[in-house]
Amino acid sequence: MHVLIVNGPNLNLLGEREPQIYGNVSFESYFQQLSEKLELDFSYFQSNIEGELINKLQENQCDGIILNAGGYTHTSVAIRDCISAISVPVVEVHISNVANREVFRHDSLLTPVCKGLIMGFGLDVYELAARSFLIKSR
Amino acid sequence: MHVLIVNGPNLNLLGEREPQIYGNVSFESYFQQLSEKLELDFSYFQSNIEGELINKLQENQCDGIILNAGGYTHTSVAIRDCISAISVPVVEVHISNVANREVFRHDSLLTPVCKGLIMGFGLDVYELAARSFLIKSR
Amino acid sequence: MHVLIVNGPNLNLLGEREPQIYGNVSFESYFQQLSEKLELDFSYFQSNIEGELINKLQENQCDGIILNAGGYTHTSVAIRDCISAISVPVVEVHISNVANREVFRHDSLLTPVCKGLIMGFGLDVYELAARSFLIKSR
Amino acid sequence: MHVLIVNGPNLNLLGEREPQIYGNVSFESYFQQLSEKLELDFSYFQSNIEGELINKLQENQCDGIILNAGGYTHTSVAIRDCISAISVPVVEVHISNVANREVFRHDSLLTPVCKGLIMGFGLDVYELAARSFLIKSR
Amino acid sequence: MHVLIVNGPNLNLLGEREPQIYGNVSFESYFQQLSEKLELDFSYFQSNIEGELINKLQENQCDGIILNAGGYTHTSVAIRDCISAISVPVVEVHISNVANREVFRHDSLLTPVCKGLIMGFGLDVYELAARSFLIKSR
Amino acid sequence: MHVLIVNGPNLNLLGEREPQIYGNVSFESYFQQLSEKLELDFSYFQSNIEGELINKLQENQCDGIILNAGGYTHTSVAIRDCISAISVPVVEVHISNVANREVFRHDSLLTPVCKGLIMGFGLDVYELAARSFLIKSR
Amino acid sequence: MHVLIVNGPNLNLLGEREPQIYGNVSFESYFQQLSEKLELDFSYFQSNIEGELINKLQENQCDGIILNAGGYTHTSVAIRDCISAISVPVVEVHISNVANREVFRHDSLLTPVCKGLIMGFGLDVYELAARSFLIKSR
Amino acid sequence: MHVLIVNGPNLNLLGEREPQIYGNVSFESYFQQLSEKLELDFSYFQSNIEGELINKLQENQCDGIILNAGGYTHTSVAIRDCISAISVPVVEVHISNVANREVFRHDSLLTPVCKGLIMGFGLDVYELAARSFLIKSR
Amino acid sequence: MHVLIVNGPNLNLLGEREPQIYGNVSFESYFQQLSEKLELDFSYFQSNIEGELINKLQENQCDGIILNAGGYTHTSVAIRDCISAISVPVVEVHISNVANREVFRHDSLLTPVCKGLIMGFGLDVYELAARSFLIKSR
Amino acid sequence: MHVLIVNGPNLNLLGEREPQIYGNVSFESYFQQLSEKLELDFSYFQSNIEGELINKLQENQCDGIILNAGGYTHTSVAIRDCISAISVPVVEVHISNVANREVFRHDSLLTPVCKGLIMGFGLDVYELAARSFLIKSR
Amino acid sequence: MHVLIVNGPNLNLLGEREPQIYGNVSFESYFQQLSEKLELDFSYFQSNIEGELINKLQENQCDGIILNAGGYTHTSVAIRDCISAISVPVVEVHISNVANREVFRHDSLLTPVCKGLIMGFGLDVYELAARSFLIKSR
Amino acid sequence: MHVLIVNGPNLNLLGEREPQIYGNVSFESYFQQLSEKLELDFSYFQSNIEGELINKLQENQCDGIILNAGGYTHTSVAIRDCISAISVPVVEVHISNVANREVFRHDSLLTPVCKGLIMGFGLDVYELAARSFLIKSR
Repeated sequence: MHVLIVNGPNLNLLGEREPQIYGNVSFESYFQQLSEKLELDFSYFQSNIEGELINKLQENQCDGIILNAGGYTHTSVAIRDCISAISVPVVEVHISNVANREVFRHDSLLTPVCKGLIMGFGLDVYELAARSFLIKSR
Repeated sequence: MHVLIVNGPNLNLLGEREPQIYGNVSFESYFQQLSEKLELDFSYFQSNIEGELINKLQENQCDGIILNAGGYTHTSVAIRDCISAISVPVVEVHISNVANREVFRHDSLLTPVCKGLIMGFGLDVYELAARSFLIKSR
Repeated sequence: MHVLIVNGPNLNLLGEREPQIYGNVSFESYFQQLSEKLELDFSYFQSNIEGELINKLQENQCDGIILNAGGYTHTSVAIRDCISAISVPVVEVHISNVANREVFRHDSLLTPVCKGLIMGFGLDVYELAARSFLIKSR
Repeated sequence: MHVLIVNGPNLNLLGEREPQIYGNVSFESYFQQLSEKLELDFSYFQSNIEGELINKLQENQCDGIILNAGGYTHTSVAIRDCISAISVPVVEVHISNVANREVFRHDSLLTPVCKGLIMGFGLDVYELAARSFLIKSR
Repeated sequence: MHVLIVNGPNLNLLGEREPQIYGNVSFESYFQQLSEKLELDFSYFQSNIEGELINKLQENQCDGIILNAGGYTHTSVAIRDCISAISVPVVEVHISNVANREVFRHDSLLTPVCKGLIMGFGLDVYELAARSFLIKSR
Repeated sequence: MHVLIVNGPNLNLLGEREPQIYGNVSFESYFQQLSEKLELDFSYFQSNIEGELINKLQENQCDGIILNAGGYTHTSVAIRDCISAISVPVVEVHISNVANREVFRHDSLLTPVCKGLIMGFGLDVYELAARSFLIKSR
Repeated sequence: MHVLIVNGPNLNLLGEREPQIYGNVSFESYFQQLSEKLELDFSYFQSNIEGELINKLQENQCDGIILNAGGYTHTSVAIRDCISAISVPVVEVHISNVANREVFRHDSLLTPVCKGLIMGFGLDVYELAARSFLIKSR
Repeated sequence: MHVLIVNGPNLNLLGEREPQIYGNVSFESYFQQLSEKLELDFSYFQSNIEGELINKLQENQCDGIILNAGGYTHTSVAIRDCISAISVPVVEVHISNVANREVFRHDSLLTPVCKGLIMGFGLDVYELAARSFLIKSR
Repeated sequence: MHVLIVNGPNLNLLGEREPQIYGNVSFESYFQQLSEKLELDFSYFQSNIEGELINKLQENQCDGIILNAGGYTHTSVAIRDCISAISVPVVEVHISNVANREVFRHDSLLTPVCKGLIMGFGLDVYELAARSFLIKSR
Repeated sequence: MHVLIVNGPNLNLLGEREPQIYGNVSFESYFQQLSEKLELDFSYFQSNIEGELINKLQENQCDGIILNAGGYTHTSVAIRDCISAISVPVVEVHISNVANREVFRHDSLLTPVCKGLIMGFGLDVYELAARSFLIKSR
Repeated sequence: MHVLIVNGPNLNLLGEREPQIYGNVSFESYFQQLSEKLELDFSYFQSNIEGELINKLQENQCDGIILNAGGYTHTSVAIRDCISAISVPVVEVHISNVANREVFRHDSLLTPVCKGLIMGFGLDVYELAARSFLIKSR
Repeated sequence: MHVLIVNGPNLNLLGEREPQIYGNVSFESYFQQLSEKLELDFSYFQSNIEGELINKLQENQCDGIILNAGGYTHTSVAIRDCISAISVPVVEVHISNVANREVFRHDSLLTPVCKGLIMGFGLDVYELAARSFLIKSR
């Protein structure tokens, strides 16, 4: 089973940016650990450009997608339309508990078209999302 | 490690109520399977009465709580206050993707005071929530 | 045909409370008259506790329910979920014309999941609701 | 006792229009049955023109009015003013449970100035409204 | 100078309808007095039908219009468009102080396209409106 | 193929009213040209009265309707209900780009129940709407 | 009969300030003309200071007040409370048609506690307001 | 004079829960001190269950009630209805200054039907509320 | 201990203004009684001018302030800023239960920066506020 | 005459994506047919990247633009600014009747700065938009 | 070139009030430095009274005004009207970044009628505003 | 000291686009002048693509950033997150006074995370922003 992790804008700064919110581990080192821990083929993509995220999601070459769309979560009708348009199931994740932050982060345009949502467990949200595919694939 | 699962109103009907949304497995039989699958001590409580849920949450005799507050998710400041007041971490779960349903189900009063949120994976949300404690307790 | 009348909070005070709005007849004496007047088996339940109303509605041992949820009409997602979950038809009633009163009484969370709504005719709303089952059962 | 039934716009299409919502009986045939069933003098008026409904309501030549104002329910301050201005009691009825439909149908400008509201029982709302006068006239 | 007074729905009931708000003089007798008092040619039109009011306003055969659109004041984009389309100046009047009444009466769709607004002086609003043309025509 | 053009309030003033917005051609002369240009049977109806527009739309004696409801576009639930109730497809048109004008003109109650919407091209919106039927009828 | 005219902030600039909206006559010269024209004792007060307007209104030494509160119209609960507290009738006037201007000018806190409102006739609003007392005092 | 103190959900945790907001004295020890300090008969009731609070309030066996409804303050129409229904005066208290906290705590459904409101003085709000009855009872 | 009482606009009319809301005792005579009753040094200031209230509050020559800002309660960011800027604790009082009155009186800009709020007990709110300093100063 | 068709995000999936909404014809094959049918020079551009759409629109090398901005229609102030900045007329099109879909699709940021809007006719919206240039260019 | 600096309520407390937001330099000492640094004639005015600020602004005896209206920024239609009425250009400044503070500080009534806005640079906003006049006067 | 100027979408059109709002000087020629005038090292970047702006801001190779994000100012949570994530101070500028333009331009997502805001002085906003760094760097 192939799982694609897609990270949106500013998540390339993970480990440097606002560590009190996002922790101080870079995503690359976390990704390494995760790949070794679970019996899944993972690939990883990050971009700050909304349309490149859409291009990647449209490629459709995996069995499941874990998407952290960062700031585009709250503003991108285009990514939402893309998730609706593709047949691969998408799980939305957020590292922090966004319900605790600014009001404009409380509404996600993406959740209604995603399979499920996991948030607030730090980087563990990626592992939990991956496990949701494992449970399902049995 | 001891995990308490607390289910709110109408979740005693699981397996009977609106199976197209909630599936057709009763929570009791699911709970049995879950207890056998994971290395955790589980206990379980369900009530339709808001204040009894608060009484249970206040007991404080476990290491983590998985809470599906059902309809009280969207209306209970009292349960929110209770979660703030206790020191045990609480993970909020919903069986369905509530962002897909009526507008009044989109806002949860509880999420900002919970550790994290997992929703949309059917009954598997309870397993994923339990695993979030396992990852953390290592 | 068996009809269950369920009254919510403060309706036990009927006949004492704000008689200019609710009249000065107690529900017990009205219930007695109604039972004699119509060819239906009636039973009656009142509670001030939201979850006990849900427990009663879930019992599912009648052919129709007349529900005056009082103040919970405007705040209880849990009672709404319960009405959706059960198969017995529920008719919502209000003694006064609540559209004439405070703004927070104008929206009912329950109406969309009830069979119908009757309000404003004083205690006669119970008789009219009961008759709606009679017409239907012919 | 004389009861006037006033139907607003598009209710002349009853039996043809959207039968999954409004049923497939024409109002004329229903009206015939109703007149025979209850001991009341009925008369009936329908118009698509807001001001003609007002003209009819102002005539004031009956003991009670059953009003289904159709689409004008949600937009006509003029009909509301007319109901306030006349002394005959008006009962508002809707065939469908409008709380279940589009948001703009949830607010009625007329309910606060009507004696009562009955909705959701199909064409039986007219019979129930008529019976509300019978109970009262005893 | 010719002044047309146009009254909208329910103003034919003046003197009968809710006298605590509108007084107990019929408009006809008031109109008689007004015509004798001021040096202006008056004509008068009343209709309960929105489109007939528009037809009358479009006739364009006067030097000024005094318009009390009643309930249509708050709902009629069509009357507003008509006032914009004609070249005769229109003065909006209301007998009562509508800012003191229900919220839906607080906004007038017509005021922005009228020359001016006079309200709250009882029937004297018509005389004051007429005088506004007299001052101007000097 | 028979196409009915229905124009609402104040469109009888076309060519006179606010020419900077609506141009200076009367609808009658435009209608003449249009009838000659396209291979369609056209008929035409205009009224300032909301209910007469509904009466006309209910007649149902054509294959397609082009509707410019003028000011009723934004306020008439009754016309919306009528369009839902009839089986003939209705194309909504506006001469000006109403998104550029007052806020209350931005929402149309009619668009959701019409087949399509064409606006902003001046009188050419009627020709484009007519052509939409021609494309479809091939 | 003694009438007090109270003008609020920036009305001392009349004749200089934005003449396309307010005209180019100073209030002093207008006041002179008005005093000569009508059979009333007038006095006049202007201040840019909200509390000084309240002090003046509280003096209570006249039979009627014409109030143009300028910008305080839309923000002063304190002036509103003052008008409620005194027994002299107050007529609210505005020189321009404020319904035509910025949104924050559309709501007046004062209108509900004033006797009436006259606006849009330029400086003539003061004369019309004064005449409203004359009609009344007969 | 008999005064009943009613505390709602989570106030049983006082002294343990969020001491930076609520202080570290248990209500029981405070209650002891208060009873000794003032010349009033006090009784005390606490429950986490909304309906049990209503049951207690309905008992009506005291001369005044001090109510801290906790989280139900902001959500309970049922408690509001109960306060309206009983004749004993109720004083609403809050330990913290809730206007300083989350937005959903800013509106109280109960204040409009209570005699008065005292908040922000820590546990002293109970003493001040009690004193309000003493002043009044003289 | 020195306590300053500051009253805002129209409170100089106390005893005359709307006695059904505010009672018929002048503040001066009440102040006399209060000074004699409690062991506190009181001083008193009233102004209708927002900025003079700010000037007084800034003087900072007392140990506690009781502030009834009248109509400025709901509109004055400037007074709020002043309370934040000074170090003396301020208690907000209102004679009437403002939650029972017009909607614009429901929100106070001042409460979040005051120590506490007491309202609804008539003139006794001043005594209760003064006592809050006494309890605290022990 | 040269017409540029610009399609925004996910429109490259046309014919695959949600065929019940968008049909099952790819845009390329439709474009081929359209080019042959009308006497216009067409060119075509699609991108999922907001800024690339802006780059294209700025090129300014055509006589008219047909723009389907997809999800960016509802969120892009930047595309709106671009349309305002260029001199070529832009016609906005949507394949589906977006007024029938989710609320966030009801408002277009682009319509006020476009020449006109055509929506709801499936792929025919492109032909109708092209014809709008033909009518105009005669 | 003569520049007038006008400071509103509580800015006389600068250097004492909330130094974490406003710094600990008094405006007088800052003003001294600024006057020496730039080649401009400066004068300075501060008042806590809204109307006195208006009086000063109306004096019109300078070539440019730098206005920090403090709390009146968000509430004063009267100051806004004054800025519109005078011909001297006004630059709005704020010491702190008000977009970071309470919601009611986010909207300025004054910005739309000012020449420009500078905020967030501490006391340097006055120097930057003064320089904006220097650049312009070259 | 190195200052990076970042311009967002459509600012490459400066000098051509809507000159009545933005003036007729190209940014390149202005940039040349600015570089010569002030003792700062400047670099300049413009893109129409949101994510490329983020890429540039993340480079972090300067001492201060002047950002005119154009249309993305009002819609980009992603750029806001980027500004929060980097340590270089960012000054937001706008050429025009956006508070004077469409409502959707009134709220900036970026201001709360920027050091300060300067707007309305035409191209001089860049010079003033640059000077804010100079003052600070002394």
